[in-house]
Amino acid sequence: MKPVKVGICGLGTVGSGTFNVLHRNAEEISRRAGRRIIVEQIGARRDNPNCNTKGTQVTRDIFDVAKNPEIDVVVELIGGYDVARELVMTAIENGKHVVTANKALIAVHGNEIFEAAQKHNVMVAFEAAVAGGIPVIKAIREGLSANRINWLAGIINGTGNFILTEMREKGRDFADVLAEAQALGYAEADPTFDVEGIDAAHKLTILSSIAFGIPLQFDKAFTEGISKVTPEDVTYAEELGYRIKHLGVSRRTEEGVELRVHPTLIPEAALLANVNGVMNAVLVDGDAVGQTMYYGAGAGAEPTASAVVADVVDVVRTLTADRDNRVPHLAFQPSSLSDAPVLPIEQTETAYYLRMQAQEQPGVLATIAQQLGDQGINIEAIIQKETSEEQVPVIILTQRVQEGKMNAAIAAIEALDAVHGQVTRIRVEQL
Amino acid sequence: MKPVKVGICGLGTVGSGTFNVLHRNAEEISRRAGRRIIVEQIGARRDNPNCNTKGTQVTRDIFDVAKNPEIDVVVELIGGYDVARELVMTAIENGKHVVTANKALIAVHGNEIFEAAQKHNVMVAFEAAVAGGIPVIKAIREGLSANRINWLAGIINGTGNFILTEMREKGRDFADVLAEAQALGYAEADPTFDVEGIDAAHKLTILSSIAFGIPLQFDKAFTEGISKVTPEDVTYAEELGYRIKHLGVSRRTEEGVELRVHPTLIPEAALLANVNGVMNAVLVDGDAVGQTMYYGAGAGAEPTASAVVADVVDVVRTLTADRDNRVPHLAFQPSSLSDAPVLPIEQTETAYYLRMQAQEQPGVLATIAQQLGDQGINIEAIIQKETSEEQVPVIILTQRVQEGKMNAAIAAIEALDAVHGQVTRIRVEQL
Repeated sequence: MKPVKVGICGLGTVGSGTFNVLHRNAEEISRRAGRRIIVEQIGARRDNPNCNTKGTQVTRDIFDVAKNPEIDVVVELIGGYDVARELVMTAIENGKHVVTANKALIAVHGNEIFEAAQKHNVMVAFEAAVAGGIPVIKAIREGLSANRINWLAGIINGTGNFILTEMREKGRDFADVLAEAQALGYAEADPTFDVEGIDAAHKLTILSSIAFGIPLQFDKAFTEGISKVTPEDVTYAEELGYRIKHLGVSRRTEEGVELRVHPTLIPEAALLANVNGVMNAVLVDGDAVGQTMYYGAGAGAEPTASAVVADVVDVVRTLTADRDNRVPHLAFQPSSLSDAPVLPIEQTETAYYLRMQAQEQPGVLATIAQQLGDQGINIEAIIQKETSEEQVPVIILTQRVQEGKMNAAIAAIEALDAVHGQVTRIRVEQL
Repeated sequence: MKPVKVGICGLGTVGSGTFNVLHRNAEEISRRAGRRIIVEQIGARRDNPNCNTKGTQVTRDIFDVAKNPEIDVVVELIGGYDVARELVMTAIENGKHVVTANKALIAVHGNEIFEAAQKHNVMVAFEAAVAGGIPVIKAIREGLSANRINWLAGIINGTGNFILTEMREKGRDFADVLAEAQALGYAEADPTFDVEGIDAAHKLTILSSIAFGIPLQFDKAFTEGISKVTPEDVTYAEELGYRIKHLGVSRRTEEGVELRVHPTLIPEAALLANVNGVMNAVLVDGDAVGQTMYYGAGAGAEPTASAVVADVVDVVRTLTADRDNRVPHLAFQPSSLSDAPVLPIEQTETAYYLRMQAQEQPGVLATIAQQLGDQGINIEAIIQKETSEEQVPVIILTQRVQEGKMNAAIAAIEALDAVHGQVTRIRVEQL
């Protein structure tokens, strides 16, 4: 079958990430999509040293891509409102399917764009516009379609979450952390979009519309930034059992829909309170499912590319498969399943927690450690409890090793006179 | 357009939940699906007092449903292996699409069922088979399709997680908590499937296949239960900075795929370590997106029904829409968007954290509280710091109130002689 041809407009962080993911995972992606996906053309004002575009057509005029008769799917990654809008409309009018990561564009011009897409019978996909690599739009729009959604609340700006996390963990103040975030590249030179909540409001506007079925109304969103949050407030909140997060909250009430972005105290035991650093998470409350949460990287080249490419695969699956086989049961085409074997447990690898009862006498620990060493197993930590008994519990945490070797070491330890009964073994994963 | 007709087989916990959700949310669901969905027939050995099936055809022979020429989609909720297999194969051979929540069936007979579905051009959907209401199959199969998945790890049995959570939080032992779980209805009279990890291995087998593109191989999964985890192990793990969770872990290595369910020590700061009680969560590591996590209720009538009905909607959307409009951009059909207004911030409702500088003198707190009381605002907590200064910080946590009333109260408080400067206000959400 003919490959699907993609044109990428914009070769910044996300554009280069998208190009690289499509290349690196080309084989695996085509096994899922049922068809090869190739980058036919790139439209970008300049090259990006992070990706090797040799062999790919590059034009300085992004509108070339939108009009290129060879191209099936236009991926808009230039950002901003006006030119992006014109580009996407041109692509649609030329019969191209569109994938975009542009939250500002969708939040502000989405209603008009979707109408044009319907008229021209093309798909417009925008998973990457909200919460980067987390497939939260798909989750709400498809996975929760049985529910009357009551509310949703999200940490949907990584820069803001990084700043608030640093303020809490290190007692620093806003301006100080912002300067560091700018130096690290987490925050823009003009941080207004991030710290004043405009970026989050774009995303919340989109989430709110798909949750409650209302038209996109970015101009009605209430937005308050985090620049006035002080270290005192962080400390007092903590005394009260809360943490401060910059949340987007949308709630359905009898009178209408609440749509607001602001610093928010949330209980410290809430899972959302423990989403730290640049990570994003969205909590959704539905009448049937209750609360579900979606967590991951909300920005960055490849996390965002993950969502962009997933949208491309969605489009390709729809174009390619017959109606009843759009998504293969096991994600990969039946003819493309892997013959990788499932390994017997002896060949798997983890770290281990071991607990045993040992004689309280000199040299016992060394003897036990020797049995592990004989199998090439390194020890991470040991706890030996003081007791007045003759036998003491010994707890050992090891580094990663193949289970077969651990079996041999445990057999040798259990054979020692100084060790009584069986060794308890629990596997350890650092995740 | 003609409604889509669904037949439900099995009217236990999930069957009644599915019936109730389809009825209660019928209007909202049809606005999303683009078509009405009605329950044409129920096949069940007995009625269920939790749902009112009056007006719906009920048969005692589930095979009547699988052969009923009126029915488009058969929903299999009887559980178990053999009869369920026969029922699903009969439905497929009769040209019905199938939705099932049966993890045992899919893990053991899935390869055969999917082949039959392809041959007969019908869809077989099984989101509810893994992690109840969490749309994790959709997330991996579609949302992460750009990634080479490295590994996944999940808490995918609520009963086991409830037991381990109680053991840790209350220092209780396994047998004691199991008895309570059975009394509460979280655990079956025969708890083997849950506590020995068989149920989790069924689910892990499915997740592993869609992550790595390997055929379903339940017989190769390694399974170790939690019945031997002792309170000492829980305590020692905690001393080392870990918690014990019953995880399903699947990892891709050069030699093959690891597929194992066992008690596992994981770092206490990991988000997964903080998934407690009967809740489920799945953590997935992909090469582009990094780590993403999916959290929610893994069992129960309506959470599981949420996934069952979402699969029905997926089927209906595919049957109904033209190719390019399978899922509406804003989740709801463009003609079915709601005209619910976005509320101005004054009409939204939250609790509040207030911080102000007040004169250190008798009666000031009472005066401040009076201003809140005048607007009908209840106080949840007050912190007043002792200082040697003339002014002291006062922190107040209020109950939920409309923002307009809070604005009035703050204006009144700021007008007090005993309060200096502005009142800092941060909204509070209990989530």
